[in-house]
Amino acid sequence: MKLYKYPAVEDWKKLLQRPSMRMEDIEKQVTPILKTVQKDGDAALKAFSLRFDGANIDSILVSEEEFSQAEKDVDNDLKESISIAIKNVTKFHSAQKTDVLKVETMPGISCWRKSVPIQKVGLYIPGGSAPLFSTVIMIGAPALIAGCEEVFLCTPPNSEGKVHPAILYAAKKIGLTKVYKVGGAQAIAAMTFGTETIPSVSKIFGPGNQYVTAAKQLATKEGVAIDMPAGPSEVLVWADETANPTFIAADLLSQAEHGPDSQVILVSTSEDIIQKTEAEVEKQLSVLPRKEIAAKALEHSRSFLMKDEAEALKLVNEYAAEHLILSLDNAEDVAEKIINAGSVFVGHYTPESAGDYASGTNHTLPTYGYAKNYSGVSLDSYYRKITFQKIEKEGLESLGPHVERMAAAEELDAHKNAVTVRLNALKD
Amino acid sequence: MKLYKYPAVEDWKKLLQRPSMRMEDIEKQVTPILKTVQKDGDAALKAFSLRFDGANIDSILVSEEEFSQAEKDVDNDLKESISIAIKNVTKFHSAQKTDVLKVETMPGISCWRKSVPIQKVGLYIPGGSAPLFSTVIMIGAPALIAGCEEVFLCTPPNSEGKVHPAILYAAKKIGLTKVYKVGGAQAIAAMTFGTETIPSVSKIFGPGNQYVTAAKQLATKEGVAIDMPAGPSEVLVWADETANPTFIAADLLSQAEHGPDSQVILVSTSEDIIQKTEAEVEKQLSVLPRKEIAAKALEHSRSFLMKDEAEALKLVNEYAAEHLILSLDNAEDVAEKIINAGSVFVGHYTPESAGDYASGTNHTLPTYGYAKNYSGVSLDSYYRKITFQKIEKEGLESLGPHVERMAAAEELDAHKNAVTVRLNALKD
Repeated sequence: MKLYKYPAVEDWKKLLQRPSMRMEDIEKQVTPILKTVQKDGDAALKAFSLRFDGANIDSILVSEEEFSQAEKDVDNDLKESISIAIKNVTKFHSAQKTDVLKVETMPGISCWRKSVPIQKVGLYIPGGSAPLFSTVIMIGAPALIAGCEEVFLCTPPNSEGKVHPAILYAAKKIGLTKVYKVGGAQAIAAMTFGTETIPSVSKIFGPGNQYVTAAKQLATKEGVAIDMPAGPSEVLVWADETANPTFIAADLLSQAEHGPDSQVILVSTSEDIIQKTEAEVEKQLSVLPRKEIAAKALEHSRSFLMKDEAEALKLVNEYAAEHLILSLDNAEDVAEKIINAGSVFVGHYTPESAGDYASGTNHTLPTYGYAKNYSGVSLDSYYRKITFQKIEKEGLESLGPHVERMAAAEELDAHKNAVTVRLNALKD
Repeated sequence: MKLYKYPAVEDWKKLLQRPSMRMEDIEKQVTPILKTVQKDGDAALKAFSLRFDGANIDSILVSEEEFSQAEKDVDNDLKESISIAIKNVTKFHSAQKTDVLKVETMPGISCWRKSVPIQKVGLYIPGGSAPLFSTVIMIGAPALIAGCEEVFLCTPPNSEGKVHPAILYAAKKIGLTKVYKVGGAQAIAAMTFGTETIPSVSKIFGPGNQYVTAAKQLATKEGVAIDMPAGPSEVLVWADETANPTFIAADLLSQAEHGPDSQVILVSTSEDIIQKTEAEVEKQLSVLPRKEIAAKALEHSRSFLMKDEAEALKLVNEYAAEHLILSLDNAEDVAEKIINAGSVFVGHYTPESAGDYASGTNHTLPTYGYAKNYSGVSLDSYYRKITFQKIEKEGLESLGPHVERMAAAEELDAHKNAVTVRLNALKD
């Protein structure tokens, strides 16, 4: 980790830059996959599964037997942990439900807003080495809490045509009954255009590699919504002299192990803490199974020594971290002043991994600086908020003339006329 | 308007199709404009204003004198109407504020979610024949209610280098002090990259022609968020035999006058109402100032005669109209069953134009079928919802082992370790 001491404000933007993401080449590779799935449906999905996953798939839909087998294959301890994670995530997300908001803006004019679940939602869970059953909970449970009518999950099969049992177990546990064995850009294509087996959806959720990311971006051009723009995962730890370097180092490494493009930032007003943390990082790194990945991520990661809390706060808000750990004595006070972050971990005993798995908050968060303009996944992500209004005759009599006047001023006479014909009828 | 009687369900998708929107060619024209503004800043803005608006602009920022002059140029009646619109919009949007939501998911584990305003927001108001001061209110007032730190507006100058007084008056009235005289793709570029005068923003709001739409789409690739994907405006009127054909015809025309690509749909279970409405449309159309535009829009607009209320409801939800007028005797009951729409106008005396201007709801709404997956602009559009969590020692002692177990099952050992080092410290 390169250390920057008291960086000048004018250099912050450069120093806080993320590794560049250029998707054009990937898009060129992904476009023909999308087109083929649109044209050939299930046949294309099976062909791509054979080509990319080495899997010969008979039935794309996971069977009851596969769910039952998964239930047997997951050990009881893990089942208990998954239950607790689901319970906490459900508790926090259920609390996000909102009532219909109704306001009488003027006598005889009622306006209201109602949250209505998106009808068709598709979830994507990547395959690869680590079976991300935690993400099944994070993007699946809120969809079912919101009451989306049709919710299903796509995830790639391994070369034996199987899905990791923990993924199937978590899916079933939250109430998902439809899991399709298909991954990559072809899964996103299936959810975008629909195939014989897989229905098209209105919104796609879930992480993925760069092919999946590019496919999701292309899906938006076809009218499908996505959870949020993607980018490499990142953490910023802000630590003061009361922080424990062993804890902070572990937090930094928990992010670094995600991938070589992960970004890890340490901010402190204490040079001593920075030095001790760096030493701890070296120590802990050496025994990590994923140490090569983590080491690569650390190469482009940075420490910032700041002159005081106010400067540190500015830098932290400027970075807009996906995960922000406040390992500070006054962490709760500082948390009040955070204006740009995905999710904030407050205090010395709140590691990011608690939120990644089980505290109750969602782990699908805006990264790559998107925390400045996007929120993480929450119950809201599964709703549209539809507005309604009802105007009584007396309401139109008082508001109508103002609408007529404004429509005339905008030179939209038919807009004006829609009021005029009604006011005339009321005069009769 | 072409009439379809009892259309077969399998034909609905085709019959409800919107006019196609292909942006590729426009994107090619817009890309060099974006690049030039990124490179040359204000100089590029001035050059483009001269080229596209025929305006020779000295100062891009609207001056105090221009605001004062606008105040004089707007007549008192219109000022009063604008005040009422602002009051209603403010009342409905202020009511959308939410408190911090705090949940203790387990003893010693607190999770909370807080709405934090987006810091930098840019608004775009198109020029052209009609001065859309109503849109200034709709996208500007919520930004100021939300408490966005930096909010400004771009709008093209006319050939004399001036902005319509009603736009400046409405801007000042809601509390906007910075208005920049620049329009088109170059304005979007300025808000995306920043220039010497115009700051870059995190989110851009507002309607525009196809160049502005394309520029906004391209801006999202640069990390800027936008209010929503754009499309031609549309209305669906669902009328029963209690509806007044004169009212409905006026509503249909108020949408049709927006532009030749506007879409207008009439749904009814009464053939008599459809016929009477068509006759009224012809009658009212002939005296409209914008009759040529409206006639063009009507060419690709449709009426559907449906067999009963249930079928009509299905069709209406399938279309997912930007504006949905329920001119029905039981409109309030039916409104409960609407699951896809931008904004719903309930009952015979609730014309769309009331919501377009002054009832209190927002008029920036998802069109082109996007109502299936996007919400209209609301106070939420100006916030990020940031999550926080604080875990006490006892909370980590109970939750920690589950996090360790799940992290191990996902083969993410550093995630596990971030908990382990803390649990070890607690044992000491």
